[in-house]
Amino acid sequence: MAYLECSPDYQTLPSEYSRDAISAAAARLSGQVHRTPVLENAWLNRQLGCRVFFKCEHFQRGGAFKIRGAMNSVLQLSNEQSSRGVVTHSSGNHAQALAIASQIRGIPCTVVMPENSPAVKMQATKDRGATVVTCRPTQAARIAATQAIVDQTGATLIHPFDQPNIILGQATAAWELLTEVPHLTAIFAPVGGGGLLSGTCLAGRWFHSDRRVPVFAAEPLGANDAFRSLQQQALVTEQQPQTIADGLLTTLGQLTWPIIRSHLQGIVTVADQEITAAMRIFWERLKWVVEPSGAVSLAGLQQWLPLQKADGRKSEPDPCYGVIISGGNRDFMSGV
Amino acid sequence: MAYLECSPDYQTLPSEYSRDAISAAAARLSGQVHRTPVLENAWLNRQLGCRVFFKCEHFQRGGAFKIRGAMNSVLQLSNEQSSRGVVTHSSGNHAQALAIASQIRGIPCTVVMPENSPAVKMQATKDRGATVVTCRPTQAARIAATQAIVDQTGATLIHPFDQPNIILGQATAAWELLTEVPHLTAIFAPVGGGGLLSGTCLAGRWFHSDRRVPVFAAEPLGANDAFRSLQQQALVTEQQPQTIADGLLTTLGQLTWPIIRSHLQGIVTVADQEITAAMRIFWERLKWVVEPSGAVSLAGLQQWLPLQKADGRKSEPDPCYGVIISGGNRDFMSGV
Repeated sequence: MAYLECSPDYQTLPSEYSRDAISAAAARLSGQVHRTPVLENAWLNRQLGCRVFFKCEHFQRGGAFKIRGAMNSVLQLSNEQSSRGVVTHSSGNHAQALAIASQIRGIPCTVVMPENSPAVKMQATKDRGATVVTCRPTQAARIAATQAIVDQTGATLIHPFDQPNIILGQATAAWELLTEVPHLTAIFAPVGGGGLLSGTCLAGRWFHSDRRVPVFAAEPLGANDAFRSLQQQALVTEQQPQTIADGLLTTLGQLTWPIIRSHLQGIVTVADQEITAAMRIFWERLKWVVEPSGAVSLAGLQQWLPLQKADGRKSEPDPCYGVIISGGNRDFMSGV
Repeated sequence: MAYLECSPDYQTLPSEYSRDAISAAAARLSGQVHRTPVLENAWLNRQLGCRVFFKCEHFQRGGAFKIRGAMNSVLQLSNEQSSRGVVTHSSGNHAQALAIASQIRGIPCTVVMPENSPAVKMQATKDRGATVVTCRPTQAARIAATQAIVDQTGATLIHPFDQPNIILGQATAAWELLTEVPHLTAIFAPVGGGGLLSGTCLAGRWFHSDRRVPVFAAEPLGANDAFRSLQQQALVTEQQPQTIADGLLTTLGQLTWPIIRSHLQGIVTVADQEITAAMRIFWERLKWVVEPSGAVSLAGLQQWLPLQKADGRKSEPDPCYGVIISGGNRDFMSGV
């Protein structure tokens, strides 16, 4: 575990990240994606000595928050763009999310996946009506294969995290959370490429009751590029990730980084065993299947809380933390 | 899979099983146990061609419906009985439930467990403040050890299923379900000793909107004493159970059997692989941790639905089935 306190300057944002832009994304997604529940657990609140409000994106369509950004993007394509379809490269939750969004909109969808992707993930994407194109398992091969499809078909690239419509779509998770619990002390979100985290930062900036809501990032120790970027105040793009949180392996993007740098209140890194301990709480106490990446935010809160006390800071009388569970797509284990 | 259609005669019940008795139990338990959510899943409804309303007892205190009967029993002890405490024999969810109920009421609780019970289950019961007494792993040894504690301490035996207060407590699960969805076509419940099933039968008899609600049992093929009892119209008490549904190994009791015989509409037995398939749906689609016994009712509905169609029966235009998920206490699997 390591913790870095940041000094957000809330610098002026490009106009595409305005309060109105998030409201518009939320209105656009209404009825298209689930408004996932916000749930508490009495036992955990007693254990942690605070109230924890989970934003349950593991109950989202496709089992993760990714449908928000994908749907927000697909819904804004022109008719001409729609006819040419969309393309992305992903072996994870974004692939399925874009396939679902495309299926609903009735447009062609191609997903570039490394040839060593699990067959079950390829099949799940095909089951949603997408075309799967395989490539060698390198970043360069993924980008080249994706570009080739754009060139051939004129399809629109829907990036897993580094596009404004993706960031604004992901922002609607925290927007819903703050609509339901406006007095949150802070929000914890996991960080991989930073789509969810930067969106959460925007929601925390704009949708408070009487002040900005501080946003904290939780990141796997074995994929801590965001921590290093914030430490060095410069975007780190090199990483050999080693963590069970397989949804958080990528580094921050050109668009997510500046939002995070200027808005994040702090970042906690967590070891795999801390992630597993959080998954165990979800399993044993809440009876939820949460994927490793989805449990990182709770693990981060658990590591961060004692620091605050040790620091001797006066905490609010009744602290309430929002914790975004990003997804629940774990392979089934029968146990027999 | 096997299915047996029954011919319930709804014979007159002893007065302790009246409509008022269930209402009184529900009032007694209000605020003491969770009113668990009733939830649907759009994907599953489409798959099955009907609406399925899950009564989510895996989200109950202690992770299973068992707290209902235990609490209903403990809350009705006199002060003198309370001072002498309670005792039961169980290695499963009833043990923890009675420990929790006793802890809340602040009375002594002793649980007799076979000496080969998993250490984690013994510890969980001790963590709830109960005294654990071990015995040899035979039915006779359990009963003898329990009786010895009753003789020594004057403690009140709270049976896992075969007592009126237990049956009435368990009835409140279906009572809540029918309060929320009064127009249910039928209810599916799992059957082990029959506490939950007989209680569900009582709720189905008394708390309908305009008719009795048929109740169906789902039972593991490898522990099918209830199926055989109904087939032979005589209580079967011999069984060498072999199933992953470890909460449903016991045979029906002297009190649960006559209620079930006179009220049950039908019984479906399900193989372990069908139970596992239902657990997989809960895991992958609903992101819920459900124990094998808790998945038996969905497995039963899944096996039963095609029979109805094959039978050429005219089903209701919009059939709505209640399915009770009895518990979610599975050991955590980290998968790493």
